[in-house]
Amino acid sequence: MATNIADSGTSYSSLFARRNDVFAPSIWTEILKLFQRHPEPVYFGDGSPDRSLIPLDRLREASMRAWDDAPEYLGYGDQQGYEALRHLIVERMGEIGIQADASRILVTSGSSQAIDLACRVFLEEGDAVLVEDPTFLGATELFRAYGARIVGIETDDSGMRMDSLEAALRAEPRAKFIYSIPTFQNPTGTTMPLDRRQRLIDLARQWNVAVLEDDPYVELRYAGSPVPALVSLDPNVIYLGTFSKTIAPGIRCGWSYAPAEVHRLMLANREVADISNDRVMMRTAYYAARDFLTEHVKKTLPVYANRRNTMLAALDEHMPEGVSWSRPDGGFFVWITLPEHCDATVLSEIAADNGVIYFPGKWFFPNENCHNTLRLSFSTVPESRIVEGVRRLGETIKGAPGI
Amino acid sequence: MATNIADSGTSYSSLFARRNDVFAPSIWTEILKLFQRHPEPVYFGDGSPDRSLIPLDRLREASMRAWDDAPEYLGYGDQQGYEALRHLIVERMGEIGIQADASRILVTSGSSQAIDLACRVFLEEGDAVLVEDPTFLGATELFRAYGARIVGIETDDSGMRMDSLEAALRAEPRAKFIYSIPTFQNPTGTTMPLDRRQRLIDLARQWNVAVLEDDPYVELRYAGSPVPALVSLDPNVIYLGTFSKTIAPGIRCGWSYAPAEVHRLMLANREVADISNDRVMMRTAYYAARDFLTEHVKKTLPVYANRRNTMLAALDEHMPEGVSWSRPDGGFFVWITLPEHCDATVLSEIAADNGVIYFPGKWFFPNENCHNTLRLSFSTVPESRIVEGVRRLGETIKGAPGI
Repeated sequence: MATNIADSGTSYSSLFARRNDVFAPSIWTEILKLFQRHPEPVYFGDGSPDRSLIPLDRLREASMRAWDDAPEYLGYGDQQGYEALRHLIVERMGEIGIQADASRILVTSGSSQAIDLACRVFLEEGDAVLVEDPTFLGATELFRAYGARIVGIETDDSGMRMDSLEAALRAEPRAKFIYSIPTFQNPTGTTMPLDRRQRLIDLARQWNVAVLEDDPYVELRYAGSPVPALVSLDPNVIYLGTFSKTIAPGIRCGWSYAPAEVHRLMLANREVADISNDRVMMRTAYYAARDFLTEHVKKTLPVYANRRNTMLAALDEHMPEGVSWSRPDGGFFVWITLPEHCDATVLSEIAADNGVIYFPGKWFFPNENCHNTLRLSFSTVPESRIVEGVRRLGETIKGAPGI
Repeated sequence: MATNIADSGTSYSSLFARRNDVFAPSIWTEILKLFQRHPEPVYFGDGSPDRSLIPLDRLREASMRAWDDAPEYLGYGDQQGYEALRHLIVERMGEIGIQADASRILVTSGSSQAIDLACRVFLEEGDAVLVEDPTFLGATELFRAYGARIVGIETDDSGMRMDSLEAALRAEPRAKFIYSIPTFQNPTGTTMPLDRRQRLIDLARQWNVAVLEDDPYVELRYAGSPVPALVSLDPNVIYLGTFSKTIAPGIRCGWSYAPAEVHRLMLANREVADISNDRVMMRTAYYAARDFLTEHVKKTLPVYANRRNTMLAALDEHMPEGVSWSRPDGGFFVWITLPEHCDATVLSEIAADNGVIYFPGKWFFPNENCHNTLRLSFSTVPESRIVEGVRRLGETIKGAPGI
């Protein structure tokens, strides 16, 4: 604030917007500390595809091909995303039963940016966002940075509970949207069945709130049958996809598919925020998706499926009584519930001493109200290490006070 | 807003945040209409480097080299930017007299994103931002989208006027920062001399407002002597740089250099907004900057210098009396002032009919309060076309009513 103070010692902190008060120290600081407790920990924290599976030579070829036309496109442009890529995204969405339209696809810097753009479109300070409790940490941090209140909706083995959702909608006059990861949810791994999805859509319509469907893992199914996306039940759903889990997170390429009026505003916000995605990498993603991505994903499925099966079998073998876990049909995560009196955050340090690192569940609860849960990711860990890590975790839990 | 409305016909528009009210139809719609008025218009609108000058083969090599280490980095990470690139940016800043520190460099998706992150750190609804009047359109659109009021500070041939700035600081209790492009300004091409820069810093300190220095054109000097950057006069200035004008805008790679507490919050906001830049392209920019960028920029300088000289000479030859223009020492833009009674927006259609397209000046005035100015960009137009375009512009102006 402009005040005549002659010499202020120059700290800008009095000028900062209140929205910045939400930023806590990064969880990565905590994780790095855990890594210092054992020489060779098994790391169950990574929410990425396994980098050793990335088809590097073919990606490099795709990138080379992208540079061929570079003189035509290296200026400003492609704010909505490279047109051929948008058409290919529509084709890929068609393969999972979503009828989309390339004119309403917006290519974004990962689906994170698509969530951010949706926030810009919908959120004012004091608005409420309804989320699965627990949910993706990055999303709730972002909602908070817009001054939104996070309303956690109770979940069970089938995802968000509809009685809880209805009660929240009744209680929240400022609810703007429901943020859901209905398929292979992060962090629980659960999938919402069709009847519940239909109910969610009906409730959203009834209470006139928007729905943001975050669907990063849908192509990574190892068991069970596909369930229709929320957006295929209601074209008003704002759908978010990404290449982060099928190609690699480092290329920062995701997308949104939104109703026309929402799309228009997300695009307007994107143009002022950072104009467009990197234009070379949009074309690299295009050639990758056109030439080999489907085949590549097919090849990775058995690898991830084996890791999931190995993890579930190891849990059966090594977990003491009183511990339960999810059995995901896809994605990267298994969600563990310890006996009520165990604190998974406290235990994480002992576990790290014993050579296994996981994400304490409380990070995923917007209100940090659940201490006895934890997330294991199997996507980047070879099978023998999964067995060893789960064994170490079992030992740790067995040794915890009161077990 | 959650209201039980049974069936709403499903429009989300009642849910949109007010900040979206600022989005007017894109100026690109206007420009595209102008292009339809003549078969071969000379286009003086482009604010990019000339794509025919882009060292494509070397960039492709840099990109190839970047993929070599890809298995190590294609996951999530590099939120602050690839470390080696940050060090190289510091070196390049050193060459223009700025002593920076890589730990406070943040690599962003173009400097647009750096401006956006600064907005997140500083702006609340109703705050004021002080800008050169006229200034970069993308910045003022963004400030408005944060609910900020734009206070245009009068400019002359030496940039922002300090008496105007002081008056505005006195009048604006909610001023948060001064946004300035002190060198080869967009759209005027003017450069602020050292004494005025020092005065700007003193005023900002005295009134405790932050300073955002946007410096995209600094390396593109064709005449005169370098003037110290604002940040080299006061390390509390938030400095923004970019490779958009030296490599290409399509690679979306810029950076900020900010005081520690500002840097920390810009990074925190960046992590939740879109995590990081594309990691392949950060390395591509690194190899480009390490191996050939300085040499490449040196090669392009005479090309741009000739285009500038050609444009200034053509203006001397073809402009009627009563028209004046800036004589930029660098950058891409010449700013034209027509006689008071001419409306450059109205004239832009006649000019387009005559085969020349420019940006009407009013787009750059936050309050659209100056009708008789226009911007010409010479960076992407070959010399013979510059002469032809300026000739067409001269004819147009001469034919305007009242000239």
